[in-house]
Amino acid sequence: MDTPTLPKPLKGIIPPMITPLHDNRTLDVEGLERLIEHILNGGVHGLFVLGTTGESPGLGYKLRYELIERVCRQVGKRVPVLAGITDTSYVESLTTAEKAAYYGADAAVLAPPYYFTSAQVELLEYLSHIAKELPLPVFLYNMPVHTKVMIEPATVVAAAADIPGIIGMKDSSANLTYLSSVQHALQHKAEFTLLIGPEEITPHFILMGGHGGVNGGANMFPKLYVDIYNASANKNFDELIPLHRKVMEISALIYKVGKYGSSAIKGIKCVLSIMGICDDFMAEPFHRFKAKERNIIRENLLKLDIEGYEIR
Amino acid sequence: MDTPTLPKPLKGIIPPMITPLHDNRTLDVEGLERLIEHILNGGVHGLFVLGTTGESPGLGYKLRYELIERVCRQVGKRVPVLAGITDTSYVESLTTAEKAAYYGADAAVLAPPYYFTSAQVELLEYLSHIAKELPLPVFLYNMPVHTKVMIEPATVVAAAADIPGIIGMKDSSANLTYLSSVQHALQHKAEFTLLIGPEEITPHFILMGGHGGVNGGANMFPKLYVDIYNASANKNFDELIPLHRKVMEISALIYKVGKYGSSAIKGIKCVLSIMGICDDFMAEPFHRFKAKERNIIRENLLKLDIEGYEIR
Amino acid sequence: MDTPTLPKPLKGIIPPMITPLHDNRTLDVEGLERLIEHILNGGVHGLFVLGTTGESPGLGYKLRYELIERVCRQVGKRVPVLAGITDTSYVESLTTAEKAAYYGADAAVLAPPYYFTSAQVELLEYLSHIAKELPLPVFLYNMPVHTKVMIEPATVVAAAADIPGIIGMKDSSANLTYLSSVQHALQHKAEFTLLIGPEEITPHFILMGGHGGVNGGANMFPKLYVDIYNASANKNFDELIPLHRKVMEISALIYKVGKYGSSAIKGIKCVLSIMGICDDFMAEPFHRFKAKERNIIRENLLKLDIEGYEIR
Amino acid sequence: MDTPTLPKPLKGIIPPMITPLHDNRTLDVEGLERLIEHILNGGVHGLFVLGTTGESPGLGYKLRYELIERVCRQVGKRVPVLAGITDTSYVESLTTAEKAAYYGADAAVLAPPYYFTSAQVELLEYLSHIAKELPLPVFLYNMPVHTKVMIEPATVVAAAADIPGIIGMKDSSANLTYLSSVQHALQHKAEFTLLIGPEEITPHFILMGGHGGVNGGANMFPKLYVDIYNASANKNFDELIPLHRKVMEISALIYKVGKYGSSAIKGIKCVLSIMGICDDFMAEPFHRFKAKERNIIRENLLKLDIEGYEIR
Repeated sequence: MDTPTLPKPLKGIIPPMITPLHDNRTLDVEGLERLIEHILNGGVHGLFVLGTTGESPGLGYKLRYELIERVCRQVGKRVPVLAGITDTSYVESLTTAEKAAYYGADAAVLAPPYYFTSAQVELLEYLSHIAKELPLPVFLYNMPVHTKVMIEPATVVAAAADIPGIIGMKDSSANLTYLSSVQHALQHKAEFTLLIGPEEITPHFILMGGHGGVNGGANMFPKLYVDIYNASANKNFDELIPLHRKVMEISALIYKVGKYGSSAIKGIKCVLSIMGICDDFMAEPFHRFKAKERNIIRENLLKLDIEGYEIR
Repeated sequence: MDTPTLPKPLKGIIPPMITPLHDNRTLDVEGLERLIEHILNGGVHGLFVLGTTGESPGLGYKLRYELIERVCRQVGKRVPVLAGITDTSYVESLTTAEKAAYYGADAAVLAPPYYFTSAQVELLEYLSHIAKELPLPVFLYNMPVHTKVMIEPATVVAAAADIPGIIGMKDSSANLTYLSSVQHALQHKAEFTLLIGPEEITPHFILMGGHGGVNGGANMFPKLYVDIYNASANKNFDELIPLHRKVMEISALIYKVGKYGSSAIKGIKCVLSIMGICDDFMAEPFHRFKAKERNIIRENLLKLDIEGYEIR
Repeated sequence: MDTPTLPKPLKGIIPPMITPLHDNRTLDVEGLERLIEHILNGGVHGLFVLGTTGESPGLGYKLRYELIERVCRQVGKRVPVLAGITDTSYVESLTTAEKAAYYGADAAVLAPPYYFTSAQVELLEYLSHIAKELPLPVFLYNMPVHTKVMIEPATVVAAAADIPGIIGMKDSSANLTYLSSVQHALQHKAEFTLLIGPEEITPHFILMGGHGGVNGGANMFPKLYVDIYNASANKNFDELIPLHRKVMEISALIYKVGKYGSSAIKGIKCVLSIMGICDDFMAEPFHRFKAKERNIIRENLLKLDIEGYEIR
Repeated sequence: MDTPTLPKPLKGIIPPMITPLHDNRTLDVEGLERLIEHILNGGVHGLFVLGTTGESPGLGYKLRYELIERVCRQVGKRVPVLAGITDTSYVESLTTAEKAAYYGADAAVLAPPYYFTSAQVELLEYLSHIAKELPLPVFLYNMPVHTKVMIEPATVVAAAADIPGIIGMKDSSANLTYLSSVQHALQHKAEFTLLIGPEEITPHFILMGGHGGVNGGANMFPKLYVDIYNASANKNFDELIPLHRKVMEISALIYKVGKYGSSAIKGIKCVLSIMGICDDFMAEPFHRFKAKERNIIRENLLKLDIEGYEIR
């Protein structure tokens, strides 16, 4: 069911790619091409499109399909491509997954339907139904702040045991007690991939046996996050500590410039725009930083002084 | 911008129609026709399709468009048709609204985008952008349990004052203090429609000047809810109290048979299936009641003994 | 167990008295005396001390006991006195209840323990244990925004049926669907009192059979709230509508001047201070309005122009 | 202000002691003495009484003071004693702190008042007021699931910078992204102590520079947690991984036997009772495990087979 390019477990840094846009209906195609090369040059281990950082729920379907097609074509199997298929509609999730399989994506990423809140037994039944129809292996996606549903450890364990095609999980809850419980419960399933979202605690998770990080910051500075992954996996604390400090500075200086929950994605897009990589247009209901915030981001970037990334 | 069939304010009972389905991709077309006639025969004042009770977020787009077309055609302007266009994607909201306008719907109903949580200023900016592009007048839809966003009174007031095309609101928060605050703040905008969701407290709201109810129970027993509306609007307590008691019994006996948040919609669909009106298939991630719950619903229906609605 | 002064059900306006303070350890004794007479002169049907509006959880126990003693002595059985005994500690709840009984209070008011969140079965077991040891009849107090626990309708019904001494409930959830469900489920227990907190929707509840309101605004303008109660109970809409409009103005002009959740209590205390009735000191963690907000309150009071209450 | 026995920063394992009770009003004095020696024998670095695990909010004040006195006397300065003074009442927090100072505690631990929810600016003002009056240095206590308030990183930073006497923080949010942000923001205040609650992720935090763990499991198996602390601090992964696996087994087998939020404390008390150390009575609103759960705990203890702790 899955392609030879997808290791089990999948390890390393799999950036959740932002979606370069010119407006609500138009991809920034040249920006997208530059962004993909920028990210792959950093040595990342995969690419995740149409996640939260990719503003997937805010995009129209035509644009989602076009994005998958362009990304798969340009990546050209250099790394595995994971495509988000989360949807409130079962039918639209399937269609997106079929497009992704057709264009050559290696796996799908699926969070619970996020309008109606399903109970855990309802969620498990839903997963068993949809997995049967999907043409791609699936990573579960725990994102309770947006979906209102925490995929309970027992549900992950049941899905991993009983539903063919569910091969891993990405957790963006920031609740590492939760993720550690899942990891412990699945310790005998060595092929089941466990990835963490927040980059601030990715080293913590990798040091204790986690497989990888889906870190938004790797859109901007992919090599930094790959270096952190390697330092963590090798338990090289001398390298790790200063690199992690840099990540915490990025978190403080880039992600918190805006006032609202949308601040981190806006910050990443603003940086990529300042770097000359792609447009920083945000899909509704959000709107790009205005001049004031953009100037703060520019100054903060100079302060950050990330090696290998020149800011002009 | 709006049609002559839409009164300002819109008053009365506007049932949020359930969506009769045979499976995730197929409307129960004959059931839909029977259901529309069943509801209109009750004397309702409008019809709202693709709301929460209509499981809209769970349906594919092709099916949503087909539903709007069939409903508008069959209703044939006998009452105003309101179409839900709520979406996480701005582009898909617009497309749905364009279809709705083309097929002859009278207004659109719009809740905040529900994956990303927008701050009130972001929400207001979003509303001002989308209203400009919409081909239909809009009712705001406050549904915080699903959208995670309470449309604050100040935001409703600003939208009513400054955004042409926003002509009313439906509130399903069950927080009547909230709705009363909105009502008070808009008391001088006599044309702005205020509708309430929960049928248990619709009389309370109508008695104190509210315009109407978007009551799920009116799928099953439309005349009962129209009678309650009239008794409330006429302040006829002798009629109202026993009718309201009946509604409370429906709430207790039909909506709480299942264990989860999905219980009310399942109950309504089960009753309509028992009545021989339409299929009770539920769109994923939900699943219709099994025999055990169906038998309880059947027994409870007999207990209810609603005048004018025979249960065999 | 209860005294002859407590009607069953208890009907009318039972103001949740604010606690006049000079500092965190000292009652404003003269202010308290003036406040009690001010409230009783309005014709209220009871007095509730040590509730949320009374800042009870913020007060030391010595001060709580002194307050109960002084209030009971001064009220002198003119109306029933209800004393809040809600506590995270079972032992302290009992001690407060014993003091209240000793000083002559007529009933206790009890919300769930509010640090640890109890499940409904744990809550019911707790209620059955504590009720057995209490020297006073008890009103349950549903206040989920502060306690994190919604007392589910089934729990209220079980408590009303099986736990002697539980004689009523005050609901401050603002969720009138919830309260209507409780009311319906208890319709055959005619002696069980149901009171509502939010004054904005007290008329709605009274019109549909509710027993009374525990309205914070009655600290300031007791007669207004008594008049509203009477107009609602008598279904006199000509009187009710303008009175209710006044209450909505109070809500908009007095309760929302501050920025935080503490704004309503601060507003009431500020008004009473401007009226010359008592000190507006707030127990920690809150702090009285500063000059700027006080001036706004003063201006808003003039705008309100409540009959019978002169503002100088 | 603080005693010589309190290192800055405080490092290591500081167990949050459960409170041995015979009933709601009576300490299990002999059990308490055994428990203290049992814990100190494990080599812990401090003792925290009257925290969440100690059921502090459920205890009467007389009992709280007696507990502090007995613990301080018996510990006899062998390790620092931290006393919880969290309260909804400012006055009672102060009184508890004064008792703690008098009996010889080394520091106080203070979470935000937990009935009323304070905004961050209100919280900071509260902290600046109370710290001035406290006779002990203070650790902030972030426990949002119970207090409803997340102490935002900026508030911790402001408190650490501007309020003398605030010397550290314990975080029980399980949100390690949050705690890492606080840690990063305070990296230049080397004396400011940062402790973590959940034992499942204590190694992760210690590996990345955290100071210590306030781990409930150390009531049962203190040496295990001290060993984990040392392995983490020494970055000895060969020792750490199997020890951490044991902690995860304890979490799975002891803390999740009950159905509700109270399950972990009940599990710890049940184990201590089975070990013959102390009574497992729970303060209201909770109740000890019944025979069924106790038998499961007993069997699970045998499965766990913790070295150095015999179960009969």
